[in-house]
Amino acid sequence: MNADVTTSNQDDAALAAPRDALTKLAALLQADMEACNQAIVTRMDSPVALIGQVAAHIVAAGGKRLRPLLTLAAARMCGYAGGQRHVHLAACVEFIHTATLLHDDVVDESKLRRGLDSANAIFDNKTPILVGDFMFARAFQLMVDDGSLHVLHILCSASATIAEGEVLQLVTQHDLTTTEARYLDVVRGKTAALFAAAAQVGAVVAERPVAEETALASYGLDLGIAFQLVDDALDYAADEAVLGKTVGDDFREGKVTLPVLIAYAEGTEEARAFWRRTLEDGQQTEDDLPHAMQLLKRHQAIEKTLDRAAGFVRSAQEALTIFPPSALRDALMDVANYTIKRVH
Amino acid sequence: MNADVTTSNQDDAALAAPRDALTKLAALLQADMEACNQAIVTRMDSPVALIGQVAAHIVAAGGKRLRPLLTLAAARMCGYAGGQRHVHLAACVEFIHTATLLHDDVVDESKLRRGLDSANAIFDNKTPILVGDFMFARAFQLMVDDGSLHVLHILCSASATIAEGEVLQLVTQHDLTTTEARYLDVVRGKTAALFAAAAQVGAVVAERPVAEETALASYGLDLGIAFQLVDDALDYAADEAVLGKTVGDDFREGKVTLPVLIAYAEGTEEARAFWRRTLEDGQQTEDDLPHAMQLLKRHQAIEKTLDRAAGFVRSAQEALTIFPPSALRDALMDVANYTIKRVH
Repeated sequence: MNADVTTSNQDDAALAAPRDALTKLAALLQADMEACNQAIVTRMDSPVALIGQVAAHIVAAGGKRLRPLLTLAAARMCGYAGGQRHVHLAACVEFIHTATLLHDDVVDESKLRRGLDSANAIFDNKTPILVGDFMFARAFQLMVDDGSLHVLHILCSASATIAEGEVLQLVTQHDLTTTEARYLDVVRGKTAALFAAAAQVGAVVAERPVAEETALASYGLDLGIAFQLVDDALDYAADEAVLGKTVGDDFREGKVTLPVLIAYAEGTEEARAFWRRTLEDGQQTEDDLPHAMQLLKRHQAIEKTLDRAAGFVRSAQEALTIFPPSALRDALMDVANYTIKRVH
Repeated sequence: MNADVTTSNQDDAALAAPRDALTKLAALLQADMEACNQAIVTRMDSPVALIGQVAAHIVAAGGKRLRPLLTLAAARMCGYAGGQRHVHLAACVEFIHTATLLHDDVVDESKLRRGLDSANAIFDNKTPILVGDFMFARAFQLMVDDGSLHVLHILCSASATIAEGEVLQLVTQHDLTTTEARYLDVVRGKTAALFAAAAQVGAVVAERPVAEETALASYGLDLGIAFQLVDDALDYAADEAVLGKTVGDDFREGKVTLPVLIAYAEGTEEARAFWRRTLEDGQQTEDDLPHAMQLLKRHQAIEKTLDRAAGFVRSAQEALTIFPPSALRDALMDVANYTIKRVH
């Protein structure tokens, strides 16, 4: 990884307005994003009213649409101008993401999603399981309609990798002996695989050489890892109103994330006993979250997590250097910086 | 529907050994079934050990493998001899089925599956949700490997229809005002759509004309409806040890099925109040299941449900008459009879 691969132009942009990187990217792709949002609404439709209600709830909640943006941006940066394939595949990527969100919230018993009550909090646990299955199936139908077996291969493999990552997380999440490498395997699966596939299919629809596909997959993968690590950090650091999720969720669910693994590795025997009681045994009192945050602070675990994330951001940016400079390439570079900068 | 479409040969077989119809069909396809079971085991493999454990549990529990048998039988009856596509698609169909079983058991909070503890009873609710997602994804990978967009279209559409049927069931299952037509819509979705797709893809791999595809889809659909209606009847009639599921499950879960809809439609005001209390309001005591069974008996609701099922069996058999007589066609006719006969 090389800290100097970003262009000075892109560095300036990051310093100037890191928070606006996503908005800027979306602005460059405004017509595509509108078409994508329209496709999402149209293809979520079903004669079964409850499916429409859940879909409307989660679509209304919005979210950043980061993954479909990656597909649209990658396709356009690669010169795609042949039709609406990128729009339908972007919608497909968002469907896969939404399906996993619905199932994740049931698995984690989360009460908030995108700043609103989660589907399981409003409906019940049954509805999001089955509507999630519908969205998976609808995503696959969108891919089949696209008609490219190569695209199908990429997105189906990503779906299997996501599910494997989620199961691996179930096994490792209360285990403080999880190594950082194994933790990164979980992150690659549950989060980064879809980022990678989303970016890669952009090159596929543009019929670019395999090196460009690989570069975009690599960008997406490293971006996804950075994104998740920052998410882990934010869970102990963010303002609830800004983040749209409850601070300390991971802690209360007993989830071992990278900040905790760092603090645990460097902690005293007493601190380790604290982490074991609260995360492995799930025995928590009201004072435990503030104490956990103190321990993380003592070992600069949030900063170290963000440092790891910054490494992946640089690596993501480096992957993009095989493409000629363009407004979209700059915007994708900025999005990588935004991943980190949103924490401050 | 015509009761006389079955050949006398097939009628004799049904009278002689209806219970053996599945065994007979499997015997005609022994090598294919072994290859299919092997493919299931191979493709369920994952570096994540927990996935293998859940897979082993549900594969060990076995089940009748009725859906993959339909794919194998349809392909061979259509003269397929070009390779192992039917085997991999049969495995794919079983994966889709297994994924829906895992999710169904979480949704229904079932404790038994195929005569063994269900996955959610052994593991927790989280594991089957995520392993089910993995199996869906793996099923789609198997389809992509097959490489036919037509097959992909059929099986992806079926997957979406299944999920829609499951959601529709969620909405209607505690509602005694559900019409029989709407109830059959649920059954078509949650059960029959996969039977239809399983049989249809057999004709596709054999590259048969569209009329044969349609005939097999029609056979599968009607067979699936009959199968589910008999299942509804068995829930109030069967021997637990034989069926491998708990008698009265549907009643305890407050599920409105066809026998109940029939008894409700014909019932006194007092009986209707009973059904509303027990199924819509979910207020049940120990004596309620025996009383429910008395009410069903009074209105011959089980017999009437089985009569409806018999109509679908005849219709399924009629669809097969476009194929020339063969041992496999006879066996598929017998399987349709078996659907009904297993109740006695």
